[in-house]
Parts: sequence; C-alpha cells; structure tokens
Amino acid sequence: MRYLTGLNPVSKVADILPQVKRVEEVEKVAAWDAAGRVAARDVVAPHDYPPYPRAAYDGYAVSSEETPGRFKLVGAVLVGQYRRDLVLGRGEAAYVTVGAFLPEGADAVVPEEAARKEGELVAVERRFEKYANVDPPGSYVRKGTVLLRQGTVVTPFDVVGLLDVGITSLYVYRKLRLGIIATGDELVAPPIDPEVAAELVMRGRVIESTASLVSWYIQTYMPYVEVREKAVLGDRHEEVRAAVERFLQQYDAVVITGGAGPSEIDHFYKLGFGGLRGFRMKPGRPTSVAVVGGKPVFGLSGYPISALHGVVRIVEPVLRHMANVARGLGHGWHYAVITQDVQGEMAQIVRVRLEVGEGGLQATPIKTRHHSFTDPDACGVALVPPGGAKRGDVVLVLAYRDLRRG
Amino acid sequence: MRYLTGLNPVSKVADILPQVKRVEEVEKVAAWDAAGRVAARDVVAPHDYPPYPRAAYDGYAVSSEETPGRFKLVGAVLVGQYRRDLVLGRGEAAYVTVGAFLPEGADAVVPEEAARKEGELVAVERRFEKYANVDPPGSYVRKGTVLLRQGTVVTPFDVVGLLDVGITSLYVYRKLRLGIIATGDELVAPPIDPEVAAELVMRGRVIESTASLVSWYIQTYMPYVEVREKAVLGDRHEEVRAAVERFLQQYDAVVITGGAGPSEIDHFYKLGFGGLRGFRMKPGRPTSVAVVGGKPVFGLSGYPISALHGVVRIVEPVLRHMANVARGLGHGWHYAVITQDVQGEMAQIVRVRLEVGEGGLQATPIKTRHHSFTDPDACGVALVPPGGAKRGDVVLVLAYRDLRRG
Repeated sequence: MRYLTGLNPVSKVADILPQVKRVEEVEKVAAWDAAGRVAARDVVAPHDYPPYPRAAYDGYAVSSEETPGRFKLVGAVLVGQYRRDLVLGRGEAAYVTVGAFLPEGADAVVPEEAARKEGELVAVERRFEKYANVDPPGSYVRKGTVLLRQGTVVTPFDVVGLLDVGITSLYVYRKLRLGIIATGDELVAPPIDPEVAAELVMRGRVIESTASLVSWYIQTYMPYVEVREKAVLGDRHEEVRAAVERFLQQYDAVVITGGAGPSEIDHFYKLGFGGLRGFRMKPGRPTSVAVVGGKPVFGLSGYPISALHGVVRIVEPVLRHMANVARGLGHGWHYAVITQDVQGEMAQIVRVRLEVGEGGLQATPIKTRHHSFTDPDACGVALVPPGGAKRGDVVLVLAYRDLRRG
Repeated sequence: MRYLTGLNPVSKVADILPQVKRVEEVEKVAAWDAAGRVAARDVVAPHDYPPYPRAAYDGYAVSSEETPGRFKLVGAVLVGQYRRDLVLGRGEAAYVTVGAFLPEGADAVVPEEAARKEGELVAVERRFEKYANVDPPGSYVRKGTVLLRQGTVVTPFDVVGLLDVGITSLYVYRKLRLGIIATGDELVAPPIDPEVAAELVMRGRVIESTASLVSWYIQTYMPYVEVREKAVLGDRHEEVRAAVERFLQQYDAVVITGGAGPSEIDHFYKLGFGGLRGFRMKPGRPTSVAVVGGKPVFGLSGYPISALHGVVRIVEPVLRHMANVARGLGHGWHYAVITQDVQGEMAQIVRVRLEVGEGGLQATPIKTRHHSFTDPDACGVALVPPGGAKRGDVVLVLAYRDLRRG
C-alpha cells in the first residue's frame, strides 16, 4: 500500500451510524432457538410462576397448621404430574417429589427423612412453618416482571430462565445479513492439500485466513449477524466490483478484505464510494467505510490482525447499531473483585451484576431464591470458594453480558 | 431429593483424575480445521519465514547500496508471484507490491510516492538503508522456533499465525466423545409447538433445558469434546440403565442430568457405580462422579444452574485431563491493567501476555514485528486508545487463552 494521508480518528465512526439502515423486521421464535438473537421487545412475565406452591424437597405435603401431628397418606404427586383433583382434608398428607405442585390444602413439605412412617400414617414430630421446603406461588417470577429488555442479545442463561417460568417464545429482530469478499491474486482458499498449500506459501502465495478470522469473530461475538456468503476473488477489479454490487443487493452490509489502500490494485479506492478512507489506527490504517443506500461497505486490510482491528474498532459498532443491540453477549471466565462478603462453608456459584470500576471489573452478588431464574441485571455467575469470599476478594466469573462500555 | 450426608469437598475431584483414561490417539489435521483441537506435539517452524526479503510497502525494489540514484525499471513482482528468475543488475529496479518476495539483488523498497518516475527511469533522491520497508528473511519466524506447545487448545489466532508462515497441518488428539442423558418424567423436549409447551409448564411439566445448557457450555468452552448424543428419557430406570451401558461402550464419558440424589426415582444412586456421591457445593450438592473402566459417569442436578455448577467444578477438570489440555481456550473481552507504557498517537491493537496478579488481570505487551505472527506466550490482544496507555491503565483485552489457574 502507499502511505495514506488525512486519516480519520477512530471516533469518527460515529458519523456513520445515522447513515445506515437499522433492521426493522421482527420475528417470533421459540425460546430454545433464541440464543444469540436480539430481543425486539421487553419480555414480560404473563403470569406468576409457579402458579401453585411447589415442592423444593422430596417428602410429605401437609398443612403447616397441623404440624406437629400424624397424617394419613392419601396420594402422591410426582414432578411433572398435574393433580389439581387431589385435595387434602384435615389430617391428610401426599407424597411429593421436588418440583411437583403441592395439592390443594398443603402449604409445607416435610422432608422424607424428617418424618417417620407408621404403616399408613406419617408422623411429624416438630412444627413446619408455612412454605417450609416449598417455593411459594410467584416466587420465581411475578406477573408483569420484565425478564429481558428490548435490545439485549439473548444468552443461553436467559433461555433457561424463560423456559423455567413458561415463556416459550419471544420476538427478536431478524438477523443482519453480511457478505464478505476476500481479494488478492496471492490468495489460496482451502480446502486444498496441506502439503501443496505449504509449498505455495514458500513460493509467495498466501492461504486465505483474514476473511476467515473476520468471519470467526463476527460469528462468535455477533451471532445476530449471519455471514451469508464468503467469496475469495483475485485482483480482477471488474469481478470484485460485480461481487460488491450483487452483495449490496442481497445483503445488509459488505466487508472487503485486502485492497483497502490507494495503490493500483486496491479495490476499495477504485469502487469510488467515498466515505471514510483510512483511520488513525495501527495496524489497520487503510480500514475504510462507505455507506451506499443505507448499507455499509467496509474495506479492511488483507493482514489478519490489522483486519481484526478494523472489525473491532469500525465494523462492530456499525453492525451492532444496525442490529439494534443495546446490550451484547459476554463470554468466558473473568477475574472480578467481589463487592460484598459472601458467607458459606460450601463452594458456591452466585449470580452477579458486573460493573467496570477503577482498577477493573467488580462483581456484586444478586440475591435470587431460585436457581435458574433470569434477572435482567445479572451479567454472569461467580464462583465463591469453600469458606466464602470477603469483600475485595478476586473471584472467577463466567460473564454472559458484554462488559464493554459504549 | 433427600438431604445427602457425607458430602465430599470439591477438591476431592483430584482423586478421580488418576482413574480415568486419557485420549492417546493422535490425528493430523489441516491447520484451517485445527481451531478448538488440542495440539498433540509442539509445533515447530520447519523453515525460516519469509524465505526471501519481502516487501512491506508497494514501491521499487532496489539495492540499498545504490541509493540515492537512478534505476532502470526491468520488471515487476506482484504479491503471490514467484519470480526467482528475475535478478537485478547494477542500476536496475523492479516494481513490487506489499507481500511480494524481492527479486535477487534487491534488499530495500523505495515507496512509490518517495520516488520520481522519469520515463523508463526511477529517481530516488535519498539514502534507503538495507531492509528499509522490507521484512527480512526469517523475520516472521526462525526455523526451530516453537510456535505452539503440546497440550494447548488451538485458537483461530494460532491458525492464522501458522498459515502465515507456511505451517498447514499439525498433530492433534482425537476429540473426546461424550454422551448426555437427561432424565425425568416431567421433561418435555423441543422441538414442540411453543404454545403447547407454555401450557405444559403451567401444568407442572418442565421444558428440557438443563442438558442443553450443559451441552452449550461444553461445546463453547471445551470444543475438544464432542457431544455425540443427547438422550431425553423418562424415569424408567431400566431404560436409563440401558442407555448408560450403551453410552459407556460407545463414548469416553457420560453425563446424566436429573436423578442425582438418593430418592426413589434417582438414577445415579441406583446404578450402583459407587464413586464420589455428593459434593460440598451449593447449588449442586447431589453432583456425583464414578469411574467405570476408566470412563467417568457424572451425575448432575436436574436444575440448570446447579448442573452448570457441577460441570464447572467437577466435569470440566476431569474432561480437560482426559483430553490432555494443558492450556485451554480463552474467550471474550476482559478488562486488564497494563504493566508497561505503550506510546503512540494512533489507536492500537497489541499482542499481550496475561497474568492474574493481586487485584485481577495484568496485561504485558509482547513486541512482535509482524502483524499476525503467533507467539506461544501471547494470550490475547489489547486495545490501546489513541494517545497511548500508561502503566497501570485499564485496557480492554480480547483473550484467547484460558485465564484460569490450575
């Protein structure tokens, strides 16, 4: 490439945002297919869940007012069974397994090992309070609670939390459609015999990996973008131009790798789209972007890390905006400073809110009674070691919301 | 579930490791198919790369000793062309594009805009040093350099780095084969009409999501494990037993979700494998593991987050060990404290080593001349803002090696 002049500061990408068309089409998908999609509306609980008191242990469902006492076993409700026909009278109990709705007339569960069976009777020797070993109605979620906010990228944790309370479908934006064009006479595209490929590299050819890296990053970190087509082309400019024109008709955005500079074989320049040509970033100075009919065309370096730099600084903010992402996906295990003491002798996993403070990431435990309930403020789960953690301790966190500001 | 007694500390999982069979089979795969696999040998550069001086800019390849001077243009080498037949004599130059091997007789590139064309001649008015605008032979990698260590999970960054220097295949361990069995009469497995599913949840049924969450975690964070089969079964114990026995024959490890406690419908207990039953962890106390003929059978809670806790504390260490993983995959954007000043007016992306110090993650820039070269010590790439970063500043890092200790 030649030296570029008049480079733009990277912050100038903000000027592009008002020029691009955001996705407006919305579709309803099953919750189990929603991970990676962008919520198009707030997801609100349509009902209390559970609808009835629910057993938190295997044991005997009884009326708490009748404890201590002797009960006659009149039936059983195993998890998954729906037995609203079973109504307990005075002095009656039913066997329940964890997760089962309690029969009418019961409001507490006596754990199996805390009761003594005497033939047909069950002897309970101490008092059990109302809702002892029971998840009360509405304890997972109350009708009207916002479980997921519009613009949030749905995570597998959200899917689990929604299914858990009976929300089985939601509205999401359609995926953004992207086409990628790798350019360069030097490129060799797999599949190819690896031995032949090795020989070609020693003779100056390049195995295409830049567009592959770009594609990997987008698929992993922006799953709401679908890479619909990846073309590897030589430096015949008319062919590149024809591909760009076709991609602009078929897709929402186009990425070109290689040929981003101003030399004779450089395509982005010759396409004549104008836009922002060259950014004050290193590597990746030739990174460019133009908007054609509301659709961005990105020119990235042919070098993998330079192209990745262009994706992170320039492509990602534009595509996030087009996809209506307010809160993106997080990934992986992070170290964070815990902001509160967490007591407990056992090893724990706790849901946390994550914030970026001075000196790094801070994790604040969120009290949630239920194990898989989703909370729109939760960003991850933290591992607390046996014996607990003290405020200021560093803990490991699996993050599922994007931690990046802005 | 009933209350479990005699729970094991989570550290006891270490006792399981010597009992399981590690994967020994090795296969050779193309580098472009190697991401997520575990390197079975050190990957060592078989040659210097580049083999010849390589243009770092578009311009005129000349002998540095003859600058300043006038040169006769005798040919061109574009990137991807192999022109060892082209040999420059005194006073001769060749046009080269970035990435092209310089013809014999040349050791510097005069950028196109720094020269003046005078008909057939190219006038260069100042001195250019040896290797000016050139990547010298061996500057990406020297023969014998270890690029990737045995036991490292290969990342897309490694793939790019290996291809870049002509390493197109490598030896990896075969993937670990896992079978997952979700148990519970209450379970409903998608695909199913979402409206029907919602109604079933209100009647006490549960949409299977625990095994899905487990499977998601394993596929995302342990891509060297292949989830070969996922079965959703009711609580007919003989059916569960038959599935476990078949899975033990076909796969390297088995995970059972649900039925991990000691109650009447709890399968892990009834299988009679012994092993470690129950851990001092919350949630997830019923988490269990037994080893049958060198193959682990894991019993996890039926609750999603409890099961995930079991995966992270118990399943993952055992499967990593079996898969010969010394250094796992990292994911996502992290905040880290930079340990050195990085100067520069432009926005930068720099390769970093990551370490966990007091107070969190620390990023140390690694000097690498070449943009996509892989370094076995590199763990991620850091974004340095325009104007540079001072030691102690917090920067964003995309991590590609696992940051967890131990």
